[in-house]
Amino acid sequence: MFLSMKKIIVSLMALSSLTASAQFGAPRENPKVPSVVASVEDFKPASTNQGGKQYPMVNSERMVRAQIKAPDATFVGLDIAGKIYIMTKDENGVWTGTSEPQDEGFHYYQLNIDGASVPDPGSKYYYGASRWGSGIDVPAKDEEFYTVKNVPQGSVNEVYYWSTVTEKMRHGYIYLPAEYYSNPTKKFPVLYLQHGMGENETGWSAQGKTGIIMDNLIAEGKAVPFIVYMDNGLDVRRPGDPAPGQGGFGGFGGPRPQGGPGQGGPRRGGFGGFNAFQDVLIKDIIPMVEGKYRVIADTEHRAMAGLSMGGMQTHSITLANPTTFAYVGMFSGGTFNTEELKDAADFKKTNKVLFMSAGGRETGMVEGDRSVVKAAENLKGIGINAHSYVSPETAHEWQTWRRSLYQFAQLIFK
Amino acid sequence: MFLSMKKIIVSLMALSSLTASAQFGAPRENPKVPSVVASVEDFKPASTNQGGKQYPMVNSERMVRAQIKAPDATFVGLDIAGKIYIMTKDENGVWTGTSEPQDEGFHYYQLNIDGASVPDPGSKYYYGASRWGSGIDVPAKDEEFYTVKNVPQGSVNEVYYWSTVTEKMRHGYIYLPAEYYSNPTKKFPVLYLQHGMGENETGWSAQGKTGIIMDNLIAEGKAVPFIVYMDNGLDVRRPGDPAPGQGGFGGFGGPRPQGGPGQGGPRRGGFGGFNAFQDVLIKDIIPMVEGKYRVIADTEHRAMAGLSMGGMQTHSITLANPTTFAYVGMFSGGTFNTEELKDAADFKKTNKVLFMSAGGRETGMVEGDRSVVKAAENLKGIGINAHSYVSPETAHEWQTWRRSLYQFAQLIFK
Repeated sequence: MFLSMKKIIVSLMALSSLTASAQFGAPRENPKVPSVVASVEDFKPASTNQGGKQYPMVNSERMVRAQIKAPDATFVGLDIAGKIYIMTKDENGVWTGTSEPQDEGFHYYQLNIDGASVPDPGSKYYYGASRWGSGIDVPAKDEEFYTVKNVPQGSVNEVYYWSTVTEKMRHGYIYLPAEYYSNPTKKFPVLYLQHGMGENETGWSAQGKTGIIMDNLIAEGKAVPFIVYMDNGLDVRRPGDPAPGQGGFGGFGGPRPQGGPGQGGPRRGGFGGFNAFQDVLIKDIIPMVEGKYRVIADTEHRAMAGLSMGGMQTHSITLANPTTFAYVGMFSGGTFNTEELKDAADFKKTNKVLFMSAGGRETGMVEGDRSVVKAAENLKGIGINAHSYVSPETAHEWQTWRRSLYQFAQLIFK
Repeated sequence: MFLSMKKIIVSLMALSSLTASAQFGAPRENPKVPSVVASVEDFKPASTNQGGKQYPMVNSERMVRAQIKAPDATFVGLDIAGKIYIMTKDENGVWTGTSEPQDEGFHYYQLNIDGASVPDPGSKYYYGASRWGSGIDVPAKDEEFYTVKNVPQGSVNEVYYWSTVTEKMRHGYIYLPAEYYSNPTKKFPVLYLQHGMGENETGWSAQGKTGIIMDNLIAEGKAVPFIVYMDNGLDVRRPGDPAPGQGGFGGFGGPRPQGGPGQGGPRRGGFGGFNAFQDVLIKDIIPMVEGKYRVIADTEHRAMAGLSMGGMQTHSITLANPTTFAYVGMFSGGTFNTEELKDAADFKKTNKVLFMSAGGRETGMVEGDRSVVKAAENLKGIGINAHSYVSPETAHEWQTWRRSLYQFAQLIFK
């Protein structure tokens, strides 16, 4: 079974009710709309701002206000959530504009200055939509769970390792819980956690706040201490693979139930590494993590999860390697169905939790045939310990995935 | 002895022959100059570019070429090393411009679009000049020492900790050598390493490439394995300290020889934390590092170094805490003089290496009375094991400090 890149994108779009450009970072021509008049003038600097920067701001209506000095510009716009809000210039050459209310949580955005799309100098920068660019966190009612607190601190660590698959050094991040440092003989379970299309290995710790969520969950006794490993699921080019931008969208292995670890032989191409990532995970990453860190190196202590495209990779990789991971999570990444699992004896015997989630605004994933809730019910019917979660009033964005990790982490390794 | 913030800045400027605006991130009005015609058209994407981005580029003459689409702009400039190179627009609205040759190594830069100073969407972003913004690495003849290689990998780890001084959670980075993981009972020495004015705790690992330099040095047997801890030396506000931008430039404690660790009592103000950082280092950071990590917690296994302002902090803190650190390094941060050390019995008895370095283009630090070379000679005369290093053909920039770390790391804990 082969899926083309186009089919994967169409499939994700259908699931998430997003436009291709917003999701996949294609050049955008968002419509220009008037700046909005706020009814509450209680704007405060965003938590995602660079230190000491006043703009961008957010008010209690969750409107975003941007400001930049551009004395000689003829147009400046705030480009967020598919619209460019037209900013206006004061007598000092300073432009200001305000968006409509945004959902709670993290959003990518940028400024448009006379046709140039650039990062806002006021914000910190995050990797998404295939570029480092501005992000803004809109305060959420439940933000406590991803706020840094004075609890025992684990740490997110940068990792370089040699890949036998790509024959290059690769780069990832590993979260080690506080007890990894305080209890120097204890071994821990590991969750392999993947980002979405247009993102990279920094997403889960920066936008996703993985380290903070885990420290808080462990401190409250809601999750057992475990390690989280985060890699780049797209930047995987094997020797001989076509260079980026020169094709390479050919093969997507798709689910290969009953195959052993790393089976299926080399698959060339695979849009930017979607598919080759399985090889890197099984042949390079897991052996590196289990060799270098104090890890309980067995199936019952190994989990995989991912968001959006990373959820599809989790789907594909855990089906193709049915005895490798006991816990599986797909966040806004579609569903497992009973058809593909009903005869998957190894998978069913191995799996202890199968978790599927989506944002409440992702109508394609929470209503109708493709609903994560319905999928979980169906899977329970064939003996799978399936769980579903719907994040209230969020879309195909990081607030959905922070909450999904928070839920999933409480279910695994118990 | 009190120094005002202005005096510190003037002092650093005199040492480094830099303008205040370039060094300290004050608003700049750099002159606009014509784009340069390259004699060699062998431009390649910079190593500091975002994945897949073609621009900015560097050629073998070390000229930097930037490009951005801004169809409606009337002016676009490449703002680097104190000049704004005027870019020109093609028929597709794409602007291109080329700078004069730059020194080897890392440089901050930005684009100017119709008067707005913004990051270049093609580069990765680094914290310097008091903002996250564009950086570019110009290839250097000696870049091998800071290139990732397939050698045993330590890791740079993110650290949050509670500060009793600021009564807030604080944030730093710690480099743990490969052997920290492979040899789970071994304890290691620690170098406390500080950034410069307008930079933060990310500088040494991102621009400075500390983890890569250390892994390579240790793999070659040129340095003993040791830990490096990097914190923010400016963002230190104690309860009751004036808020940023509301004064707080009053007190700079200056050298206090013969004082014990943490002595001197609370000092309010201290421009943005320059001075309060001593309290955080002695009372919070060192106890946290020595409590949480496997560290040899004695003077002979403790070093402090810093660049520019971080070098001045090292000067001040190691004099005020003369029995705390056995190894001391100042990179482009001035010199110790014989006058302040000749009667400093505790410092002299404790110190094993005193290292002072500067870039060869920092004339104020390599020629005349304030030369690091001359200072080291003078200090040897009073029994100090002083070393100096001058980085060839570099200025008050990161290539000087990468090389300084590379030199200093080979001298300490031996």
